[in-house]
Amino acid sequence: MKEIRVGIIGFGTVGQGLAKAMLAQRERLQQRTGIDFVLATVADIAVTSLPDEFGQVTLTNNAEDIFNDPTIDIVAELIGGMEPARSFLLKAMEKGKHVVTANKALLSVHGKEIFAAAAKNNVEVGFEASVGGGIPVIKALKEGLVANRINYIKGIMNGTANYILTQMTDHGTPFAEVLKEAQELGFAEADPTYDIEGIDTAHKLAILMTIAYGLNVHLDDVSVEGISSIEPIDIEFARRFGYRIKLLAISRNHGESVEARVHPTMVPEGHMLATINGAFNGIQLRGDTVGDVLLYGQGAGMMPTGSAVAADVVDIGRNIANGSVNRVPALSYLPENIGEPTITPMEQLQCPYYFRITALDKPGVLSVITGIFGKHNISIRSMMQQGHDSNEPVHIVFRTHLAQEGSVEKAIGEINALDICTAPTVKIRLLISE
Amino acid sequence: MKEIRVGIIGFGTVGQGLAKAMLAQRERLQQRTGIDFVLATVADIAVTSLPDEFGQVTLTNNAEDIFNDPTIDIVAELIGGMEPARSFLLKAMEKGKHVVTANKALLSVHGKEIFAAAAKNNVEVGFEASVGGGIPVIKALKEGLVANRINYIKGIMNGTANYILTQMTDHGTPFAEVLKEAQELGFAEADPTYDIEGIDTAHKLAILMTIAYGLNVHLDDVSVEGISSIEPIDIEFARRFGYRIKLLAISRNHGESVEARVHPTMVPEGHMLATINGAFNGIQLRGDTVGDVLLYGQGAGMMPTGSAVAADVVDIGRNIANGSVNRVPALSYLPENIGEPTITPMEQLQCPYYFRITALDKPGVLSVITGIFGKHNISIRSMMQQGHDSNEPVHIVFRTHLAQEGSVEKAIGEINALDICTAPTVKIRLLISE
Repeated sequence: MKEIRVGIIGFGTVGQGLAKAMLAQRERLQQRTGIDFVLATVADIAVTSLPDEFGQVTLTNNAEDIFNDPTIDIVAELIGGMEPARSFLLKAMEKGKHVVTANKALLSVHGKEIFAAAAKNNVEVGFEASVGGGIPVIKALKEGLVANRINYIKGIMNGTANYILTQMTDHGTPFAEVLKEAQELGFAEADPTYDIEGIDTAHKLAILMTIAYGLNVHLDDVSVEGISSIEPIDIEFARRFGYRIKLLAISRNHGESVEARVHPTMVPEGHMLATINGAFNGIQLRGDTVGDVLLYGQGAGMMPTGSAVAADVVDIGRNIANGSVNRVPALSYLPENIGEPTITPMEQLQCPYYFRITALDKPGVLSVITGIFGKHNISIRSMMQQGHDSNEPVHIVFRTHLAQEGSVEKAIGEINALDICTAPTVKIRLLISE
Repeated sequence: MKEIRVGIIGFGTVGQGLAKAMLAQRERLQQRTGIDFVLATVADIAVTSLPDEFGQVTLTNNAEDIFNDPTIDIVAELIGGMEPARSFLLKAMEKGKHVVTANKALLSVHGKEIFAAAAKNNVEVGFEASVGGGIPVIKALKEGLVANRINYIKGIMNGTANYILTQMTDHGTPFAEVLKEAQELGFAEADPTYDIEGIDTAHKLAILMTIAYGLNVHLDDVSVEGISSIEPIDIEFARRFGYRIKLLAISRNHGESVEARVHPTMVPEGHMLATINGAFNGIQLRGDTVGDVLLYGQGAGMMPTGSAVAADVVDIGRNIANGSVNRVPALSYLPENIGEPTITPMEQLQCPYYFRITALDKPGVLSVITGIFGKHNISIRSMMQQGHDSNEPVHIVFRTHLAQEGSVEKAIGEINALDICTAPTVKIRLLISE
């Protein structure tokens, strides 16, 4: 039986997930592919011994041992972060090895360099695990939906942020408290910045946009807002309007330009994305042929992510065995057909908005505020006021019809400058349902 | 540029969908694959001319013209039904042509013969469009989730039945009336038997089980009940218990045996499958590595199905271009590793049940009925009675704990034989949430 030998760099959560999946599924993969996928070597600077089940696997503290082993076909980079992950990937490819990675941060920043190196060395780069954990969304975009122009991507792509928002929604607990609980339970990292500020979601959106549109989308192209300013009162108002607040990645393809944004979003409660709770991810893709497709599953975790990395290993292994390397281009379009994106400027975005204005309950305050909205062509759909006390600030909440981000920014600037406003206005975009 | 030439047999809804998709996406597919996918010939006994947009395409009334054209690489059989579809597929493969089909009825009955012929002639059989319309579920099972033992399949796989149940749920309209409306709107066929009696769903489950488990599952292996006996009152009781009624395909993999069943099912209202409404499909797969994954989209229709057929054409075209035919085995396991299934007998099934008993409201009736349940070890979780009139039959509704189908059948037989029972008892299984 044809043997494909794999080296893993980084024996953390995902590395262990791949190792366990390869061991547990080895016989099944033989029955499916006619190939024996062998875990040859694990490299990790901090690991001194492997669990007994990996008795046949070589352990090293030096990744060079993997690069220099001519019997290894595929290298899985599962350490994450920028360096040394980037150098390891480049070195592995230089040595003619195919690579798989779950490293969304790296790909969304250095993707151009990585994929150019792959093309130069005629090797493959698998990155199914970089978006949506175990959900096979990369393969769906590259193959299952190949006969589609993708016009709309929207999704919940960060389990930590979704877990926090779900807890806030279900129990009315403030953000900081839920975050602390999540950290204690291991659902959030000690430094949760990437998750809660939307940066991790932006990494993933950049990758999906690249393969969906055939455009070199970079992390810097994505406009990002996190969830740390969301308060239980906003979730409660959203509920009254019939919405749930979710951290969404959104990209609409306008042809001449593409949107690229990550922000808290009010999603109608009947929408499937509103029903995705806890640490789960859901990614909705709209193709001009297929219509709407939604893929749902565990967006993180040892074994779900291991499932995705293993699928890449098998995919590449089949290509090695069949002499069909790069049968499907890494970025779904042939390298020569990948262009540079024109990103729709945020100020041109049109969507409905939710505003929560904190102001003193003085006579005429509503007239002043609505006057500012009117001046900027922002049409109000509904309004609610909570509290009625001339000594305490009250919350005045507005939901608008379609408005333009640029006008909204100006209006909010003017409102925040009013003497009667005692706190910055909270702005949440509504999901455009078309 | 490498050219792949396609012949379509059957220019009905799906055939036109593929033709339109190939035309609309031709340039995009070139940019993605480096291959020019050309629609060469359409064969249809009833079509006398093609729309102008297909000016370069040959039209024939004789499928032999496609089989005998040595320039055609891939034949799409899109006429449906058993014959002549079966003979056309066999003949095309004998002539060395790869085939794609959306024909779930044929594959679930004659699959063994079709796939044996493909192996013998070393050609591919694509059948993504046979299950879930545009949803790339076949590819997910064969590739994206390759490193998984699939332990549980459950799904809504027939849009017509789901549309009817959704209308009944939303408007309380009786089955027959919704069906008539659906037929007038074109959402249900003139002969809706396959859709409403669960047969179409059973075709699809047989195909999914085959590739998920590596077992030759035949339509006859699937136990099937349709939705025609569901009444608005059952939907209303389900709602009071916190459930929605859906026509589900369900298969649990017990290792030594596998379940294979299609029946109306009460799904907890918080479950994602309960939120899938109208003509949409949703398929949930549980793998031992990945956990739960759910795929959602349009399960039928010209363009969604065309998207799936086109994806198969592209997949096969890439293999032709790369010399990697049958890189992924047609049924996900290598032919020599596909076994015969042992189906869990329905009488051994264990699940919670809903019963609606129609009986005269005589003193002691409840005691008699609950006595029968007790005798057969069926433990009641809750009970509701609707109506209270000694002259009219009333509905007595029970929800049970886990019970065994064999015992349930015996108990219902005894209950239906009671003089006080004026109509057959309605039985609906509950989704097992583990």
